[in-house]
Amino acid sequence: MDNVGLVGMISIVASGLTIAIGSIAPALGEGRAIAQALTAIAQQPDEANTITRTLFVGLAFIESIAIYCFVVALILIFANPFWNYVITKAGG
Amino acid sequence: MDNVGLVGMISIVASGLTIAIGSIAPALGEGRAIAQALTAIAQQPDEANTITRTLFVGLAFIESIAIYCFVVALILIFANPFWNYVITKAGG
Amino acid sequence: MDNVGLVGMISIVASGLTIAIGSIAPALGEGRAIAQALTAIAQQPDEANTITRTLFVGLAFIESIAIYCFVVALILIFANPFWNYVITKAGG
Amino acid sequence: MDNVGLVGMISIVASGLTIAIGSIAPALGEGRAIAQALTAIAQQPDEANTITRTLFVGLAFIESIAIYCFVVALILIFANPFWNYVITKAGG
Amino acid sequence: MDNVGLVGMISIVASGLTIAIGSIAPALGEGRAIAQALTAIAQQPDEANTITRTLFVGLAFIESIAIYCFVVALILIFANPFWNYVITKAGG
Amino acid sequence: MDNVGLVGMISIVASGLTIAIGSIAPALGEGRAIAQALTAIAQQPDEANTITRTLFVGLAFIESIAIYCFVVALILIFANPFWNYVITKAGG
Amino acid sequence: MDNVGLVGMISIVASGLTIAIGSIAPALGEGRAIAQALTAIAQQPDEANTITRTLFVGLAFIESIAIYCFVVALILIFANPFWNYVITKAGG
Amino acid sequence: MDNVGLVGMISIVASGLTIAIGSIAPALGEGRAIAQALTAIAQQPDEANTITRTLFVGLAFIESIAIYCFVVALILIFANPFWNYVITKAGG
Amino acid sequence: MDNVGLVGMISIVASGLTIAIGSIAPALGEGRAIAQALTAIAQQPDEANTITRTLFVGLAFIESIAIYCFVVALILIFANPFWNYVITKAGG
Amino acid sequence: MDNVGLVGMISIVASGLTIAIGSIAPALGEGRAIAQALTAIAQQPDEANTITRTLFVGLAFIESIAIYCFVVALILIFANPFWNYVITKAGG
Amino acid sequence: MDNVGLVGMISIVASGLTIAIGSIAPALGEGRAIAQALTAIAQQPDEANTITRTLFVGLAFIESIAIYCFVVALILIFANPFWNYVITKAGG
Amino acid sequence: MDNVGLVGMISIVASGLTIAIGSIAPALGEGRAIAQALTAIAQQPDEANTITRTLFVGLAFIESIAIYCFVVALILIFANPFWNYVITKAGG
Amino acid sequence: MDNVGLVGMISIVASGLTIAIGSIAPALGEGRAIAQALTAIAQQPDEANTITRTLFVGLAFIESIAIYCFVVALILIFANPFWNYVITKAGG
Amino acid sequence: MDNVGLVGMISIVASGLTIAIGSIAPALGEGRAIAQALTAIAQQPDEANTITRTLFVGLAFIESIAIYCFVVALILIFANPFWNYVITKAGG
Repeated sequence: MDNVGLVGMISIVASGLTIAIGSIAPALGEGRAIAQALTAIAQQPDEANTITRTLFVGLAFIESIAIYCFVVALILIFANPFWNYVITKAGG
Repeated sequence: MDNVGLVGMISIVASGLTIAIGSIAPALGEGRAIAQALTAIAQQPDEANTITRTLFVGLAFIESIAIYCFVVALILIFANPFWNYVITKAGG
Repeated sequence: MDNVGLVGMISIVASGLTIAIGSIAPALGEGRAIAQALTAIAQQPDEANTITRTLFVGLAFIESIAIYCFVVALILIFANPFWNYVITKAGG
Repeated sequence: MDNVGLVGMISIVASGLTIAIGSIAPALGEGRAIAQALTAIAQQPDEANTITRTLFVGLAFIESIAIYCFVVALILIFANPFWNYVITKAGG
Repeated sequence: MDNVGLVGMISIVASGLTIAIGSIAPALGEGRAIAQALTAIAQQPDEANTITRTLFVGLAFIESIAIYCFVVALILIFANPFWNYVITKAGG
Repeated sequence: MDNVGLVGMISIVASGLTIAIGSIAPALGEGRAIAQALTAIAQQPDEANTITRTLFVGLAFIESIAIYCFVVALILIFANPFWNYVITKAGG
Repeated sequence: MDNVGLVGMISIVASGLTIAIGSIAPALGEGRAIAQALTAIAQQPDEANTITRTLFVGLAFIESIAIYCFVVALILIFANPFWNYVITKAGG
Repeated sequence: MDNVGLVGMISIVASGLTIAIGSIAPALGEGRAIAQALTAIAQQPDEANTITRTLFVGLAFIESIAIYCFVVALILIFANPFWNYVITKAGG
Repeated sequence: MDNVGLVGMISIVASGLTIAIGSIAPALGEGRAIAQALTAIAQQPDEANTITRTLFVGLAFIESIAIYCFVVALILIFANPFWNYVITKAGG
Repeated sequence: MDNVGLVGMISIVASGLTIAIGSIAPALGEGRAIAQALTAIAQQPDEANTITRTLFVGLAFIESIAIYCFVVALILIFANPFWNYVITKAGG
Repeated sequence: MDNVGLVGMISIVASGLTIAIGSIAPALGEGRAIAQALTAIAQQPDEANTITRTLFVGLAFIESIAIYCFVVALILIFANPFWNYVITKAGG
Repeated sequence: MDNVGLVGMISIVASGLTIAIGSIAPALGEGRAIAQALTAIAQQPDEANTITRTLFVGLAFIESIAIYCFVVALILIFANPFWNYVITKAGG
Repeated sequence: MDNVGLVGMISIVASGLTIAIGSIAPALGEGRAIAQALTAIAQQPDEANTITRTLFVGLAFIESIAIYCFVVALILIFANPFWNYVITKAGG
Repeated sequence: MDNVGLVGMISIVASGLTIAIGSIAPALGEGRAIAQALTAIAQQPDEANTITRTLFVGLAFIESIAIYCFVVALILIFANPFWNYVITKAGG
C-alpha cells in the first residue's frame, strides 16, 4: 500500500460519493419545485407562462448546485493534482 | 493485498454505491412530480397538454441528475484512470 | 486472502447492496405515483385515459432508474472487468 | 480463513440482506397503493373496475422491483460465479 | 475459528436478520392497507364486498414479499449450500 | 473461543434480535389497524360486525409475520442445526 | 475469557436488549389504539361497549407480541440451553 | 479482565440500557393516550367517567410493558444467575 | 486496567446514559400531555377541574417511568453490587 | 493509562453527555407546552389565569426531569464515589 | 499519551460537544415558542401583554436548560477537578 | 504523537464541530420564528410593530445560544488552557 | 504512508464531502423557496414582479451558502496550504 | 505520521466539515423564511415593504450563523495557531 494505491483508491471513493450524495438534495428540490409548478398551473392556467419561466430559472439555480458536485467529481477523476503529484513521484 | 486488488475492490464498491445512493433522490423526486401531475390533470383536464409538457421537461432535469451518477459509475467500471495506471504498472 | 478472494467477496456484497438499496426509492416513488393516479381517477373518471397514460410514461421513467441499478448489479456479477483481470492473473 | 470460507460467508450475508433490505420499499409502496385504491373505490364505486385494473398493473411494476432483489439473492446462493470459481480452485 | 464455525455463525445471523428486517415493511404495509380498508367500509358500507376482495388480493401481494424473506431465511438454515460444502469438506 | 462458544453466542444474539426487531413492525401495524377500526366503528356503528371481522382477518395476516420471526427465534434456540453439528463434533 | 464468561455476557446483553427493543413498538401501538379509542368514545358514546371490547381484544393481540419478547428474554436468562451446555462442560 | 469483571460490567451496562431504552416507548405511548383523553373529555364532558376509566385500564396495559423492562433490569442487577455462577467459581 | 477501574468506568457511563436516555421520552410525553391539557381547558373552561385532575394523574404515571430510570442510575452509582464485590476483592 | 486517568476521562465524558442529551427532550417538551399555552390564551383570554397556572405546574414537572440529569452530571463531577476510591488508592 | 494529555483532550471534546448538543433542543424549543407567540399576537392583539409576559417566562425556563449545558462546558474547561488532580500529580 | 500534537488536533476538531453542530438548531429556530412573524404581519398588518419587536427579542434569545457555541469554539482555538499547559510543558 | 500521501488523501475526501454535504441544504432550501414562489404567483398573479424579485434575492442568499462550500472545496484542492507545506518539505 | 502531518490533516477535515455541516441549517432556515415571505406577500400585497424589510433583517440574523462557521473554517485553514506552532517546531 504505497501512496499511489492509496491516493487512487481515495479518489475513486470520493468522486463516487461526491456525486452520489450531491445528487440527493438537488433531485428532491427539483421534484418539489416541479410538483408545485404543476399545481400552480392547474390553479392559474392563465399564468402558465410566468410560472414555467420562473420554474426554469429556479431549476437552473438548483441544477447549478448539482453541477458543482459533478465538477468536483470529475476533477477528482481526471484532473486530480494530488494524483498527478504522486504518480510523477512514483514514476520519477 | 497489492494495489491492483485494492484499487479494483474500491472501484467495485464505489461504482455500486454511486448508482445505488444516486438513485434514491431522483426516483423519489420523479415520483413526487408525477403524482402531482396526475392531481393537476384531475383538477384541470383542459390543461393536460401544458401539464404533461412541463412534467416531461422537469423529469428530464431530474433524470439528468440520475444520469450523472450512472455516468460516474460506468466510468469507474470501464474507464477508470486509476485502474488503468495500476494494471499498467503491475503488467510492466 | 489473496486478490481473487477479496475481489470476489467485494463484488458479491456490492452487487447485492446495489440492487437492494437501489430498489428503495423507485418502489416508493412508484407507490406514490400509483396511489395518486388512483385518487385522480376517482376524482375525474372521465380523464382515466389521460391519467393512466401519463402514469405509465412516468412509471417507465422511474423504472429506468431501478434498471440502472439492476444493470450495474448484473455487470458486477457476470461481466466484472476487475474479476476477469484477477482470475486471468491468478490462472496465468 | 481461506477463500472458500470467506466467499461462502459473504454470499450468505449478501443474499440475506439483499432480500431483507430489498423488501422494505416494495412492501411499503404496495401498501400505500392498495390503501389509496380502497379509498378511491369508496369514493367512486362505479369506477371500481378501472381502479382495480390500474392498481394491479401498478402492483406488478412494484413487485418486479422486489423480484429483481429476489433474483439477485437466489443467484448469490445457487448460481454464484465467484463461489463456483473458488470451490473449483480449492477442489482442484 | 475454522470455516465450519464461521459459516455456521454467519448463517445464523443472516437468517435471523433476514426475517427480522424483512418483516418490517410488510407488516407496516399490511397495517396501512387494513386501516384504510376499514375506513373505506365505514364510508361505503355497500361496497364492503369489493373492498374486502381488493384488500385480500393486495394483502396476498404484500405477504408474498414477507414470504420471500422467510424462504431465504429457511434456506439459509436448512438448505444452505455453503454449509453443506464446508461440513462435507470438514468431514471428509 | 472455540466453535462451540462462538456458535452458541451468535445463536443467543440472533434469536434475541430476531424477535426484538421482528416485533417492531407487527405491533405498529396492528396498533394502526385497531385504531382505525375504532374510528370506523364510531363512524358507522351499524357496520360494526363487518368491520371487526375484517379487522380480525387483517390482524391474523399481520400476526403471522410476527410468528415467522418467533418461529425463527425458537428454531435458533432449540432446533439449531449448526449448534447440533458443533456440539456433536466437540463431544465426539 | 473462556466460553463460560462469553456465553454469560452475551446472554445478559441479549436478554436486556430483547425486552428493551421489543417494548418499543407494542407500547407505541397500544398508545395509539387507546388514544383512538378515547376519541371514538367521545364521538359515539352510545357505542362505548363495542369500542372498549374491540379495544381490549386488539390490545391482547399487541400485548402478545410484547410477551413473545419477554418470553425469549426470560428463556435467555433462566432456561438457556447454550449456557447449560457450557457450564456442564466447564464443571465436568 | 477475568470473567468476574467482564460479567459485572456487562450486567451494569445491560441493566442501564434495558430500562433506559425500555422507557422510551411507554412514556411516549402514555403521553399520547393522556393527551387524547383530555381532548376527549373536552369534547364530551358527560362521558368523563367512561373516558378516564378506559384511559386508566389502557395505561395499566402500557405501564406493564415498562415494568417488564424494569423487572429485567433489576433481575440483571440483583438476581443475575450468570453473575452468581462466576463469583461462586471465582470464590471457590 | 484491572477490574476496579473497568467496573467503575462502566458504572459511570451506564448511570449517566441511563438517566440521559431515560429522560427523553418522559419529557416529550409530559410536554405533549400538558400541551393538550391547555388546549382542552381553552375549549372547555368549565371542565378545567376534571382536565387538570386527569392531567396530574397521567403525569404521575409518566413521571414514574422517569423515576425508574433515576432509581437505576442512583443504584448504579451508590448501591452497585458489582462495584462492592470488586472493591472488596481488591481490598482483601 | 492507569485507573486514575481512565476513571477521570470517563467521568468527564459521561457528565457532559448526560446533561447534553438530557437537555434535548425537556427543552423540546417545554417549548411545545409554552407554544400551546400561548395558543390557548389567544383562544380563551378569560382563562389566562388557569392556563398559565397549569402551564407552570407542568413546566415544573418537565424541569424536574432536566434537573435529574443535571444532578447526575454534577454528582459525576464533584461527588463521584468511583473517582474518590481510585484517587484514594493512587494516593495511598 | 500520559494522563495529562488524555484528560486534557477528553475535556476539550466533552466541553465542545456538551454545548453543541445542548444547544439543539433549547434553540428549537425557543423558536417554536416564539413562532407561536407571534401567531397568538396576530390572533388576539389585545392580549399582547399577557402573551409576551408568558412567552418571556417560558423562554427563561428553556434558556435555563441551555445554561445548565453552558455551565457544565465551562466547568469542564476552567474548573475541572480531574484536570487539576492530574496536573498536580504531573507537576509534583 | 505526543501530547502537543494530540491536544492540538483534538482542539481543532472540537472547535470546528462545536460551531458546526451548534449552528444547526439556532438557524432552524430563527428560520421558523421569522417565517411565523411574516405570516403574522400578513394577518395583522396593524400589529407589525408589536410583532417585529417580539420577534427581535426572541431572535436575541436564540442568537445567544449560537453565541455560546461560538464563544466555546473561539476559547478552544485561542484561549485553550489545556493547550497552553502542554506547550508550556513541551517548551520547558 | 508518509505525510504527502496522507495529506493528499485527506484533502481529496474533505473536498468531496464538503461540496457533497454542503449541497444538501441549499438545494432543498431553494427548492422550497421556488415551490412557494410558484404558489404565490398562482394566488396573486398581479404581484408576480414583487414575488420573483424577492425570490431571486432570497435565492442569492441561499446560493451564497452553497458557494462558501464550493470555495472551501476548491481551496482544499488547488490552494491547500497544508499540502503546499508538505510537498515543499518532501521535495526539499 | 508526525505532528505536522496529523495536525495538517485534521485541520483539513475539520475546516471542510465545519462549513459543510454548518451550511445545513442556515440554508434550510433561509429557505423557510423566504418561502413564508412569498406567501405573506401573496396574502397581503400592500404590506410587501414591511414584509421584505423584516425578511432581510431576519436573513441577516441567520446568515450571521453561517458566517460564524465560515470564519471558523477559514481560521482553521489560514490562521491556525496549532499548525503555526507545529511547523515552527518542525522547522526549528
